[in-house]
This record gives sequence, structure tokens and C-alpha cells, in this order.
Amino acid sequence: MHSPPKVVVIGAGFGGMQAAQSLASSGAEILLIDRNTHNTFIPLLYQVATAQIEPEFIAYPVRNILRQSQTMRFLRAEVEHVDFVRQHVRVNGTTIAYDYLILATGSQTHYLSVPGAAEHAFALRTLEDAVALRDRILTCVEQAAREADPVRRRQLLTFVIAGGGPTGVEIAGALVELKRSLGRHYPHLDLNEMHVSLAQSGTRLLANLPEPLGRYTARKLERLGIPVRLQTRVTRVTPTAVEFDDGSSVAAATVVWAAGLEAALPDTTVEPYKARNNKLAVQPTLQLQRFANVYAIGDLAHAHHNGKPLSGVAPEALQQGGAVARNIGRQMRGQSPQPFRYVNKGRLAIIGCYAGVGQIGPIRLTGFLPWLMWLSVHVVYLPGFRSRLFVLLSWIHGYALHDRPVRQILSSTGVTTRQLLPPIHNVLD
Amino acid sequence: MHSPPKVVVIGAGFGGMQAAQSLASSGAEILLIDRNTHNTFIPLLYQVATAQIEPEFIAYPVRNILRQSQTMRFLRAEVEHVDFVRQHVRVNGTTIAYDYLILATGSQTHYLSVPGAAEHAFALRTLEDAVALRDRILTCVEQAAREADPVRRRQLLTFVIAGGGPTGVEIAGALVELKRSLGRHYPHLDLNEMHVSLAQSGTRLLANLPEPLGRYTARKLERLGIPVRLQTRVTRVTPTAVEFDDGSSVAAATVVWAAGLEAALPDTTVEPYKARNNKLAVQPTLQLQRFANVYAIGDLAHAHHNGKPLSGVAPEALQQGGAVARNIGRQMRGQSPQPFRYVNKGRLAIIGCYAGVGQIGPIRLTGFLPWLMWLSVHVVYLPGFRSRLFVLLSWIHGYALHDRPVRQILSSTGVTTRQLLPPIHNVLD
Repeated sequence: MHSPPKVVVIGAGFGGMQAAQSLASSGAEILLIDRNTHNTFIPLLYQVATAQIEPEFIAYPVRNILRQSQTMRFLRAEVEHVDFVRQHVRVNGTTIAYDYLILATGSQTHYLSVPGAAEHAFALRTLEDAVALRDRILTCVEQAAREADPVRRRQLLTFVIAGGGPTGVEIAGALVELKRSLGRHYPHLDLNEMHVSLAQSGTRLLANLPEPLGRYTARKLERLGIPVRLQTRVTRVTPTAVEFDDGSSVAAATVVWAAGLEAALPDTTVEPYKARNNKLAVQPTLQLQRFANVYAIGDLAHAHHNGKPLSGVAPEALQQGGAVARNIGRQMRGQSPQPFRYVNKGRLAIIGCYAGVGQIGPIRLTGFLPWLMWLSVHVVYLPGFRSRLFVLLSWIHGYALHDRPVRQILSSTGVTTRQLLPPIHNVLD
Repeated sequence: MHSPPKVVVIGAGFGGMQAAQSLASSGAEILLIDRNTHNTFIPLLYQVATAQIEPEFIAYPVRNILRQSQTMRFLRAEVEHVDFVRQHVRVNGTTIAYDYLILATGSQTHYLSVPGAAEHAFALRTLEDAVALRDRILTCVEQAAREADPVRRRQLLTFVIAGGGPTGVEIAGALVELKRSLGRHYPHLDLNEMHVSLAQSGTRLLANLPEPLGRYTARKLERLGIPVRLQTRVTRVTPTAVEFDDGSSVAAATVVWAAGLEAALPDTTVEPYKARNNKLAVQPTLQLQRFANVYAIGDLAHAHHNGKPLSGVAPEALQQGGAVARNIGRQMRGQSPQPFRYVNKGRLAIIGCYAGVGQIGPIRLTGFLPWLMWLSVHVVYLPGFRSRLFVLLSWIHGYALHDRPVRQILSSTGVTTRQLLPPIHNVLD
């Protein structure tokens, strides 16, 4: 009797989780490896950062999803090396052999070599990022509440967002929602001094959606009091300011970096072919060019749809996860893998303050309806019944009462490593 | 016209919060100072540590409670110094004058000079402690799941609790509940290898309750598979073991330190009179012996009830908070403060696995009823409607499905600073 083929999946994001689940009944032995024991629901990170929901709600333990299957194992580890030729991965000094490999390691923040960005700007790509940004925002407000110097106070309350994609737009709108909820908690602080602005290097916002939706988004943000600077690049970030390529600068304690992502490729023996942003070039079947038993999916893969590169959203990774599971099943039965075809069911983006935009087939939507649809879709896709219920209740509470209740400064990330305690002047006068 | 008297309250625990709230309509200007922006609901820390509820549920933002009052301010700061003679407190290089001062800084873990305890044992007194302990417990289980060496695996799965007070008993029972929930998530791990034991230096558990309840608790823990060692002191904690005064030792990756607390007194100019455990000696009115405008309450104060020292539970601090607010009100009106009298409404302790103990008036309770009463009382006293709802739903979900869902390893506290990554052997064989 043959021993069953071994499939190793690296990365427990949308794509890797879906691939592992789809392979559960394939007869293969599956090992899923991730550095975290949880799957992070990235679309809701901005709500963690703006005190709307608890971080644990969007961090679903990987083992909860795997437990249905006896053929699946999980390993919490950092992958040190992948050897495509010898067909093994190295983790913690041990090698693990595979028959099939699915690379689903996703993407990471890319600071585009902007000086000071990696040190002083706040990314929003991991759960740790979201908690650190939450701590930073709340610490700035708390400091401002005891700061007598109006210049320093305004600096503490100035938030500049670099990047006009979905993340930049979401966090901008959510900061305005947060600002509106804070008045009752800070009766002695003038929250009109709180300023949010957004800079985007390209000519429009939400470049992956039709242009009129980007224009609507920019108008909406402006109406919310968020100046939008298009065709403006950040050239430097310091602890107290951000500088732009037009020579201007803004005194801001907090810069949110939502301007760049790059594929997070593990170390490999044989250099695979790369496309742009460090992404792996893949065949239409999502196999690597030279290794027929290695697949790359999600943000790691440079795949196409209707001749255009896919844009790195969750549905693409989910569909790819299912597709590679089917292709590996075909290979196990001696059939050849089939090309992946992306089915675009539409695209939504949330702005905040009860507005969103969307494109579903030929229909373009703006305002309240796509806002509600965005929330509905995301609560449905969120893994875990308990998390889904708690997020739904949090939204009902938060939007009905205009409250942002998760305002605990818990981690020391935002405070000790990036200290910003000014002296207290006249705190009681 | 006189300016209103200024009351400074240091510490936003049970006592300090209650004092500030009770003073809200007194006509005084109140400043509440705490190093955290949230009030920590200490009785439920053990549930955070054992993956039952989210840390944010029991960390209520101080400003949520203060917002009803215009005469109240909050300052997030570490108090550096208190000058009883000049009547001011120093924070971040600034002095803040007071007319009345309420010291409510509570208690902190006391390691009793046991070698290695402060470095290697895990305390359970702050929210950071609880998250660090949760990370440690879950990391140990995750490591054990990939450890082929049975000796090392058993060590990873051995948890020793030092201290037989309420905290030690709670965490022991909750670890058994957690163990029972883990089987479905770790099908390849034999959880019979997980061992929890408890050591107590005194002759009985729960020394503040009648002796039969302590005996019941010990029997119950033994029936849950938790050996209880009485009259046994921990003499040393190492990264891999714990040693006792009878010469024995246990190989354990995790030691929970629930064996000692001491008053957390801020630095003061004039040394106040101290009683045992660093607590401040107070008059029956809760005023300091030499400073009639300074009060000490909660775990910081050495107060008496029926000739016996109070035991440091939340109802004592809450009642004292109300009492000092009334006494300051009397002093403001030229009247003399009145002695504090503690009204003991009863006492409950939770063991876990549907058992608890309690004493209400002359009635002693054991088993399911005090367990349910403990949970009911604590969900009622938990601040914040949203938190109360989410904790209640978490309990319904957790106890009904025997699930401990908050199993995310999020902080790096338990992992990087106290590294325990063994090599992986035979992970797939």
C-alpha cells in the first residue's frame, strides 16, 4: 500500500486556510504551518485600531478550523527555508518533506525606502499593528488632554494617512467616527483640534475600483473634514512630522502607513521567477514555472484575470485556495491541473460614517447601501460563530450609540518604544 | 467666594473609583490619577488567563465612568512622590496641590524573596499578567503538541500553582476546565499528560473562609486531579522546575505565583506608619494617623472589622471608597469624620468545574449554588453594559459547549522574553 501524499501549506491566511480545508477529504496528509496560532481577518483590522472591536474577535484559532479532520495537522513555526529541489521545508532546525507544497505566505508592509517610515509610521497589516496603532491613537488623545501648549496639542491630534487604497480610506473614515465619539469622554479637550488627512501618490483613490467611485470617495472624505492630497508622495517620516514631495510638511505625531505591500516570500534554495512587488510568477494553473508540485496563491502570486493582475483581495485568495486543492487532487489522480479562473462577484469598499462604494456587475453603488453591504459581507465571512455574534453586537452598540468602547491602552507597544510623554503644564488650572 | 476644595484620588481600582464617584456631587474638584486609562476587574483575571474571556471585557475605560460629572478630571500618570506636609503630589515633573488626598493604590505581587520567583513565575495581579500567563499556557500546549520527548512534553504540560488563596484555587480549577476543552483541538496530543498541582504554605486553603469550606475545596481539587500540598513552601523557581522546602521538586515549565501581595505605596516625604505587608496604619475613620486630610483605603490600608484585619476583597474597598467620600464631605462642612464600619454581606469563592464555596451570614454553601452565585455577583458588579453582556454570553457559550475560545497567542510577552522553543522532532511521523 502507498502511504498517502503529503501536502505542506505555508501560511494560514485566507488562501492557505481555504486550501487546507478543501484538501481535508482528498486522502492526502496535510500539514499547515503558520507563525501564528490564529488566522487574522485582515479586513477588520482598522476597526481594532479605532477601538470598535476587540482584537481577539478577528483572530480565529487555526485549530478550531482544522479539528474536523484527522488527516490535518498544524504546526506553529517560522519557515526558515524551502528547498524546491529536495522537496522539503526547514523549520526550527528540522526538515519536513513534502510531495506537494502550497505557498500562501501573503504580503507584508513595504515602506518603499521612504526614510523614517519603517521606524516612525504605523502600519496596519497585522493584529500587532492594529493594537499598536490603537494604543498610539488613544495615547495621543490622552496626552493632548493634559497638554497646555496648543501647538504641541495640535500635533498630538494630527493623523496623516499615507496611501489611498482601501486601508487608507477605511482608517481615515474610522478616525473621524472615533473623533465624534470622544467628546463625551474628554469634556475639557477641544476635539476640533483633531485633524485627519490623507495623501495618495496616484491620481485617484481606490485605484482598483472605477474612477467615479474614487472621486465619490475623495468628495466624501473632504466632506468629513479629511483633506485629500492626490499625486503627493511622502518623502520622510520623523517622530513629529511628515514631509511630502511638494516640499510641504505637516506636524503630526502619528503617520499611518497604508501605501505599500510586497509579497512575503520565504527563503528558497532555487530563486523562483518573480514578477513585480516580489510576487512569484505562476502559470495559469497557479503552479510555479519550474516546479509542478509547488503552488503559490493569494498576495504571494502574480496571477491574472482578464489580462489584468489580480488586486490582492480576500475573495481571490479564497478562490485560489479552492483551485489549488482541486489541482493537487487532479495531480494525485494522474490528471493535469486546470487553469484558475477568478469569478468576480463584485467589489465593495467602506469609507465610514455610513458611506461606502461598490461595483457589482455593471452596477455602481455609493453611500449607505454599499456601507451596509460591506459590513454584512464581512460579518458573514468572519470565521467563528462567537466572533460573528460579538462583532455584530459591537456594531449595533457602536453605530447606534456613536460609541467606540474598546479604548483600553493595553499593550506597551505604542507607549514605551515610541515614547511621547510631554511634561504636564497646568493640568488642574 | 471660596474656590472649591481639591480632592486628589490616586488609583482607579475598586476603592478609588468608588470614592471619586461618591464625591461627584460633593462640590469638590476631583482629580483621579492612575497609570492606566482603565479600571481592571481583578476577580475575572483568571478567566482571561485561561482563554475564557477577552482582556478588554474586564478593562473598563476610567473616562466612561467619570463622564457624568463636570467637576471630575482624570489624569493618566505615574505618581512619583506624595508630600503630605506641603500637600501636593508630583507627577511627571509637575506638582499638583490638594486639600484632601485619597490613597487607593492597591497591592502588588510580593515574591517573598523566593529565588527565581520574580524572574520565572507568572503572577496574576494585572491585566498584563493575565495575558502573559494565557500566552504562556497556550504556548506550552502548542510546544507540547510537537515535542516527541515524553519527559520534555510532560514538563511543558505541568503547571504548579504557589498559593492556596482565592486566586490559586480559581486558576487551578480553570486550568482543569481548559484542559478538558483542549482535546478536540489537539487530537494528536495526550492531554492526560497535563498536570496541575497546588502548593500552600499554610495548613488550609481559602484561609479567610471557615475551615470546613477550605477542606471541601481541597477535596474538590483533589477529585479534579489537582494534588494539594499543604504546609509546603516554594523555595526556588527555575525556568524548568520548582523546588519546595521539603526537599522535593517538580519539573514544570510554568509556575503561577499566587502566594503573596503587598501594599503598593507611592513614594512619600514623611514616612507614614505602616502595619504588616507594607500597609498603611489608618485611624478607624481611614485617615492617616498624622494627616487628617489624607485617607487610605482598599489593599493599601490596614483596617479592622470586629477586631480582625480586613482581608483585601473588593466589597471592602468599595465600601471604604464610599465612606471616605462621606468623611471628606463632613470635613468640608466642618464636621468630624466618622469611623468606617464594614458590612459583610457574605463571601464567595469559585473553584471551577461547577463548584464553589460561600458563607452568607451563618449559612455555609458548597458546590453548584455558590459557583452560580459567584458568577452572578461578578457579572452584576462588572462595569459597563457591553462588557457585562459579552461576559455573560461568553459564559453561556463556554460552559455549555465546554469551550475556551479565546486561545490566541497575541502578545510576545510569554514567548520572546521567556523563550521555550524546543527543537522539533518527528513532527510529521
